[in-house]
Amino acid sequence: MTYMKEDIRSGGEFGFISEIRKMFPEKTSIKGIGDDCAILPQRSGLSTLMSTDMLVEDIHFILSKTDPFRLGWKSLAVNLSDMAAMGGKPVASLLSLALPSNLPAGWLERFMEGYRDISARYDTVLAGGDTSSSKDRLFISVAVVGECPEGGALTRAGARPGDLVCVTGILGESAAGLDIILGGGARNEEDLRLVRRHFMPEPRVREGQLLASVPGVHSMMDLSDGVASDIRRIMEESSVGAEMDSRNPAYFGEHALDGGEDYELLFTVDPSAQKSLPVEHFVIGKITDSGRLVWRDSDRDFCGFRHF
Amino acid sequence: MTYMKEDIRSGGEFGFISEIRKMFPEKTSIKGIGDDCAILPQRSGLSTLMSTDMLVEDIHFILSKTDPFRLGWKSLAVNLSDMAAMGGKPVASLLSLALPSNLPAGWLERFMEGYRDISARYDTVLAGGDTSSSKDRLFISVAVVGECPEGGALTRAGARPGDLVCVTGILGESAAGLDIILGGGARNEEDLRLVRRHFMPEPRVREGQLLASVPGVHSMMDLSDGVASDIRRIMEESSVGAEMDSRNPAYFGEHALDGGEDYELLFTVDPSAQKSLPVEHFVIGKITDSGRLVWRDSDRDFCGFRHF
Repeated sequence: MTYMKEDIRSGGEFGFISEIRKMFPEKTSIKGIGDDCAILPQRSGLSTLMSTDMLVEDIHFILSKTDPFRLGWKSLAVNLSDMAAMGGKPVASLLSLALPSNLPAGWLERFMEGYRDISARYDTVLAGGDTSSSKDRLFISVAVVGECPEGGALTRAGARPGDLVCVTGILGESAAGLDIILGGGARNEEDLRLVRRHFMPEPRVREGQLLASVPGVHSMMDLSDGVASDIRRIMEESSVGAEMDSRNPAYFGEHALDGGEDYELLFTVDPSAQKSLPVEHFVIGKITDSGRLVWRDSDRDFCGFRHF
Repeated sequence: MTYMKEDIRSGGEFGFISEIRKMFPEKTSIKGIGDDCAILPQRSGLSTLMSTDMLVEDIHFILSKTDPFRLGWKSLAVNLSDMAAMGGKPVASLLSLALPSNLPAGWLERFMEGYRDISARYDTVLAGGDTSSSKDRLFISVAVVGECPEGGALTRAGARPGDLVCVTGILGESAAGLDIILGGGARNEEDLRLVRRHFMPEPRVREGQLLASVPGVHSMMDLSDGVASDIRRIMEESSVGAEMDSRNPAYFGEHALDGGEDYELLFTVDPSAQKSLPVEHFVIGKITDSGRLVWRDSDRDFCGFRHF
């Protein structure tokens, strides 16, 4: 049994909930949709990780320009990326939707199909949520719960002077995809690839867990706002500085540094551990003890290769 | 350290987040605001409970008629009530806010003070969340995580024919409070009490844990939509019927049965265990094997006494 509450004021969407129960497979270890709370097992030696992210119409997406399947995918993807950022294994999610009355027929079903597909891909159970009506705009809020070995989560706070700053993939492709969407849509295969990078990001869940298992990896986060601002969060939490490449093979297009929504992992690693990392990556900078952020004008070779 | 993410598109509310860090005390066992996920310990023999509830402007509240402190309180209260409904002990919450630009000065601070006060009252840590801007309406989504002994959660599915149907307090007072608000506000002490019942419900967290520890208590849920519809959820999940009082000392005012938002606990208990329950309550019906819901026209004595 699994659970999802529903708001009786939304017009009694009992039909929607029973549809969801049919769409989403259950796991014997997790009780979910159909009760007040979902129930998950605990085990000594593990920690629970939890995070939440929301998508708001006309702030994070334009409804008329957004495919519902892809939005369903993205709603969970951005949350799984937070889990990946700590090295966690996602276990279950809660999905809350405030639904305007003017959604096109079939829209919600397609949204839930996207949500189901990414749930299956990352072995994450939909364990509950909440539904409501909304006066005009669509609101989507997702919370995700996962786990990691006790003491094994990678935070933003562990970066050390001398660490190399790395990313797990190309930066700026999501922003380039958004430009294509806003500019009228994809015109060729490459455009389609970039649009997909924007709408259907692949959270680096496996990579995050692998990196968290390497003792030389000292800090990690996911890139949601662009490396130019996100590196500052590691600097603040770790009380360090950074020298960052302003040109690098990892950077794509105009908005590689400030575009956001790449959902790659940004991490720092001891140079002695970097060569043998089990994950493809690019080195894009170095942690310093200066407390300041410096952009250097140099090219660097990338390590690993493009894996998408 | 505790965490709350913020959306850079909301205009960089770094100030807001650092204010929150100051307002909310931390617990050494929980890492929260300031990273991608919050981290909570696990222990063998316990289960994790999780739930989520949202409040949407012009659906769940009218901004101009709502005190921000009370709305902050209520945002967490309705979630803690779900935790109470399973017999769980709340541990941590995540708070997501989509904020319109036209909020009055000081509004957000008052909202957070209400959220802080109920967090302290129920010993629950604010462990993270998300903030965003919103085009016009305010959207609040809260997720709460708690725990209970493994196998000890009370679901809606355990009711047995012969069980007495009970509630932990008076029903209909929240609806009466809403009528007073919509009718122009409180005019006397009694009005104020009812308005408070609507805006600042006291989730039955302690009562829920006590009831879950009694072997004769077979099923439980919290009353958010009114007993007339909520009893049907226990009937459905337990595959039973019910005979319910249509008049009872537990019922207050016109909307005792259909008013909703009472956030009292509805539970079923073996008659042999009912007399010695450690929690004040009213008996309002009986579980049957008929599969049907019958409203009987009778008064019953109440057990326990009014505790508010």
